[in-house]
Amino acid sequence: MSNIYEEALQKHGEWKGKISAELAIAIDSAQDLSLAYTPGVAAPCLEIQKDPHKAYDYTWKSKTIAVVSNGTAVLGLGNIGALASLPVMEGKCALFKRFGGVSAVPIVLDVQDSKELIATIKALAPSFGGINLEDIKAPECVEIERRLIEELDIPVFHDDQHGTAIVVTAALINSLKLIGKEAKDCVAVVSGAGAAGSSIARQVSQLGLKNIYVFDSKAVLSSARTDLNSVKQEMLSFTNKEDEVLEFADAMARADIFIGVSGPGKLNEELVSSMKEDAIVFAMANPEPEIAYDKAKAAGARIVATGRSDFPNQVNNVLVFPGIFKGMLQVPGAKITDEIKMAAARGLASCVSDEELSEEKVIPSVFDMRVSDIVAKAVLNAAQ
Amino acid sequence: MSNIYEEALQKHGEWKGKISAELAIAIDSAQDLSLAYTPGVAAPCLEIQKDPHKAYDYTWKSKTIAVVSNGTAVLGLGNIGALASLPVMEGKCALFKRFGGVSAVPIVLDVQDSKELIATIKALAPSFGGINLEDIKAPECVEIERRLIEELDIPVFHDDQHGTAIVVTAALINSLKLIGKEAKDCVAVVSGAGAAGSSIARQVSQLGLKNIYVFDSKAVLSSARTDLNSVKQEMLSFTNKEDEVLEFADAMARADIFIGVSGPGKLNEELVSSMKEDAIVFAMANPEPEIAYDKAKAAGARIVATGRSDFPNQVNNVLVFPGIFKGMLQVPGAKITDEIKMAAARGLASCVSDEELSEEKVIPSVFDMRVSDIVAKAVLNAAQ
Repeated sequence: MSNIYEEALQKHGEWKGKISAELAIAIDSAQDLSLAYTPGVAAPCLEIQKDPHKAYDYTWKSKTIAVVSNGTAVLGLGNIGALASLPVMEGKCALFKRFGGVSAVPIVLDVQDSKELIATIKALAPSFGGINLEDIKAPECVEIERRLIEELDIPVFHDDQHGTAIVVTAALINSLKLIGKEAKDCVAVVSGAGAAGSSIARQVSQLGLKNIYVFDSKAVLSSARTDLNSVKQEMLSFTNKEDEVLEFADAMARADIFIGVSGPGKLNEELVSSMKEDAIVFAMANPEPEIAYDKAKAAGARIVATGRSDFPNQVNNVLVFPGIFKGMLQVPGAKITDEIKMAAARGLASCVSDEELSEEKVIPSVFDMRVSDIVAKAVLNAAQ
Repeated sequence: MSNIYEEALQKHGEWKGKISAELAIAIDSAQDLSLAYTPGVAAPCLEIQKDPHKAYDYTWKSKTIAVVSNGTAVLGLGNIGALASLPVMEGKCALFKRFGGVSAVPIVLDVQDSKELIATIKALAPSFGGINLEDIKAPECVEIERRLIEELDIPVFHDDQHGTAIVVTAALINSLKLIGKEAKDCVAVVSGAGAAGSSIARQVSQLGLKNIYVFDSKAVLSSARTDLNSVKQEMLSFTNKEDEVLEFADAMARADIFIGVSGPGKLNEELVSSMKEDAIVFAMANPEPEIAYDKAKAAGARIVATGRSDFPNQVNNVLVFPGIFKGMLQVPGAKITDEIKMAAARGLASCVSDEELSEEKVIPSVFDMRVSDIVAKAVLNAAQ
């Protein structure tokens, strides 16, 4: 793995930027100048002043979003600050363009306080048609996203929360279809109750699962816990229906589905073997999953997905975020609701045809270039 | 003129954005993904965390600036707000790319209060290698720029103040050379004491003029005035050396040089005729100058410049701002000082050779594509 880091560093040194701002028009004469800039530019300005919606007609707002972070929860690196997170945000912007044709600009904000962060993002929102929040630490990220969704008239999406949730939901829809189980008969265990875990639990619960047990680093979430932050408390309303205090092993023995967004070593063969028949194991800790793909299969799991590109069924947010914004940018003023996220998941699931569907393919490949259009269309239909 | 506005509106509707964020690298394989994004991207992040200067080696920071406005003083339109100013900022970004090869991103901020504006710009500064302030109202813009220059470690430049000042200084250097006068023997009248006027007065005073009289909309700036804002008060230290209270016509009768950044009708043939021999008239109100080019010439002015592209000697900031940032981006950490601005003016003046220099050409053409490189080189030399 160390080679990847060395090579990445060298490449970044050559690239000096993975995206760039480029001219979209020709400026080759005094006439061109007077249309694109003074005095002609006054005309679209005045139209937008009269009717703010016209910004979608006359500026880049209709096709451009910001990828915004304060660098407080970057990858596995933690709080490395705004500047040091810039390579990640640039990379994300590159993926937005490559996979969704969406112009994206990396904005790293040197602001740690939640209130200030919200105010700063609101201040810069007019420039953009959407805000993709990234790598902001939990639990603050949940409230930050909620406030921005309420207060802004452009779509706001915290990918760390919902991107993974949507891909997992899509993979689960296809997995249940393949093995012939119904959601209402299935129990799931979610390992990890941070930004991603809480959104995953929420979205898969909307499939109508029989029960979901969520474990944070200490124990199962239940009302017996006195140490739950607001996000974890909220999860009590749609998980652990009998409000039991039970051990991880006991929950696993009841489980049809394991979903991990925690860390390596959280799962072993014995626990997988104890699961219900046709077990589904999504072990998405990155780069080291909760249990290795091969081990989970050997222990009897029927369908295994990880975050890794070197095994089947890679759960990768890039399957979702480009299409989400590609769709939302076509519906100025719309907000990203639970319905839209579910539509995105169903759209993503539909990218795997019945013929293709197999234990090794419950999610499409990252390089299946139809995906963002299909997700965008599903999102657009739901938003309209 | 109305045709220009209609055509500009139609064009903006076709363009839907004059710039766009584009991929600068290829992402065609799982390997590409793992280098540009996870897990490889962790390597440059960690390097930048250890040494913030490394951001210039591993991100787009070394070639990207933000064009920032709050829309409080847009063109001749006044305070039209952030969103409505977006077409102007996009246009400016297009010019940065077209004339300087500098990637520029339009950031319009929905913030009117100066303190909040400073805080917001400081917060977003890590993403960029420079900040070009634009269309922020006077006198606040002066203090905003000053604070940002002090507190940020990237170059900050309010183009409305200094862009015009640098072009005017360059034009004046060449004009004096052509007519054989020395700065120390010349008196200048500046009409307009806003953002541009104050910076022009300051910079041309550094050429060593004999005296400068600055007029705002009411009268000459002098210590007798009780209504001067801080910026105008500051100008008293390098203008109106005898601290006289004199009429505009009296000042004009003493003047070798008139510099207007005020409005149409401020000047007439009689006043121009009253000026010293070989009068220099820079009438830059836009789109209607203080006096029309032809009228000023007919009244005896030897050299006339305006902001218009349909007459000789167009004073256009695009001759300066692309080169300024192109140069500054090569010297991370350097600030834009008076010396650097003067170097830019001298660099720009040098773009007109002795053979080319004439009454109709004291400034190079906007489409002289050597200009930004020559200005950048002058800036780079001064900054190093």
